[in-house]
Amino acid sequence: MSLNFSFIGAGNLAFHLAKALNSKGFQIKQIYNRTESRAKELAEFTGSEYTSKLPEIDKSGDIYIVAVKDSAIGEVLSQIDFQDKLVVHCSGSQSISVLKKYTKNFGVIYPLQTFSKKREVNFNNIPVYIEANSPENLEILRKIAGVISEKVSTADSEQRLLLHISAVFACNFVNHLYSIAGELLKTKNISFDVLKPLILETALKVQELQPFEAQTGPAVRFDKNIIDKHLEKLADIQEYRQLYELVSKSIFEHHKKLKG
Amino acid sequence: MSLNFSFIGAGNLAFHLAKALNSKGFQIKQIYNRTESRAKELAEFTGSEYTSKLPEIDKSGDIYIVAVKDSAIGEVLSQIDFQDKLVVHCSGSQSISVLKKYTKNFGVIYPLQTFSKKREVNFNNIPVYIEANSPENLEILRKIAGVISEKVSTADSEQRLLLHISAVFACNFVNHLYSIAGELLKTKNISFDVLKPLILETALKVQELQPFEAQTGPAVRFDKNIIDKHLEKLADIQEYRQLYELVSKSIFEHHKKLKG
Repeated sequence: MSLNFSFIGAGNLAFHLAKALNSKGFQIKQIYNRTESRAKELAEFTGSEYTSKLPEIDKSGDIYIVAVKDSAIGEVLSQIDFQDKLVVHCSGSQSISVLKKYTKNFGVIYPLQTFSKKREVNFNNIPVYIEANSPENLEILRKIAGVISEKVSTADSEQRLLLHISAVFACNFVNHLYSIAGELLKTKNISFDVLKPLILETALKVQELQPFEAQTGPAVRFDKNIIDKHLEKLADIQEYRQLYELVSKSIFEHHKKLKG
Repeated sequence: MSLNFSFIGAGNLAFHLAKALNSKGFQIKQIYNRTESRAKELAEFTGSEYTSKLPEIDKSGDIYIVAVKDSAIGEVLSQIDFQDKLVVHCSGSQSISVLKKYTKNFGVIYPLQTFSKKREVNFNNIPVYIEANSPENLEILRKIAGVISEKVSTADSEQRLLLHISAVFACNFVNHLYSIAGELLKTKNISFDVLKPLILETALKVQELQPFEAQTGPAVRFDKNIIDKHLEKLADIQEYRQLYELVSKSIFEHHKKLKG
């Protein structure tokens, strides 16, 4: 395929997706970003033009990848004349239909992964979900996604929303628990580093076992003695205490229900 | 050291600790467990005697490792005459002082890790925290722990309690979030498997970055549009909705505070 891509937005996802496409030989024609330095930075990686001005967006692109903050999609797209080119967004929680008023050809490419600029990722084993307004466009997206990932599936907007919510629990909320754990250790001058083997093993376990089988700790044993001791210790930090109580109760109820 | 060990309790922790000690040449003399089959199973790995009867606990042991459920420690220990041998518990949340009335020589070995019977673990890089009633006993524990782990530190009972609470957040609660994510996907007949690369990357990220830097997702961007959409979708599952709201708010507040 000699299709070329233009990126609207140069955030973390755009960064990794553009680089992945480029590394497989796709031309990245232009990068638009509101902050020019960021557009330039990515453009240097992919050998692309860049701009921070919407009117300067190149009209000769084949496929436009919209990777801006969800709340900005409408505002940005309404200022671009796509001339019915294929426009693709990458958002988990936006319906495909948000693109309808800007072009006749549209779709979604949603990679289920967390992207930070500082971390290289291997796109190859990232599940990528696609959706398109027509079978023809779906085939185009399937081919493109198939070049960067071995795990391409279709998902409608409703399934993608659930995928995104699940990812929020399994990644964003998980990362926040890492944060809280680190904050708690800091009160005793203990480094976050000591948690690293535990964090890694917890994630590795569920690569093999179901989370239900992998669960350990006081809540699943309903060790009230320990739970009460922990709640007492957290008494000063209302937010953490509330979270501790809610999650412990949830673990207990969950296991009671599933064990029958 | 030609010290031998007897284990009181043959749960997941005992299983891995006894095997780790045994693999480094320590003799595991006897395994006690309330359920005999479990004692037998571990004893076969370590070439030990086993029993399910407290009066049959061998009196000639050098060190007794108490690895029973926290709430059972008192009840079990009160039935054994330790003759002032070195008795060690492995609990994060029990003070060292719970052992005082059963022997003159006591201590704690607390490995900061999650243990499941089905998973092999490499003890070598697990942080192990020790505490003892005397400098002499501390030295004995330091030597023993040093044989199985490269990361041995002292921690008093108060520090160990915080280590345990942190581990509950970073492991047990994290694993429960994996569970919830899987449950949500099940409602759309999507396999838990699709989350595995995301879960692993989330854990790998904080091996290098601080959790604060690694945070992504709608809450840290305060993308109210998406958060509201997710809450609406979770409206039927009150428990998950409440958790979503609480953690999102916590992420937002946390980042607002730290960014200043």
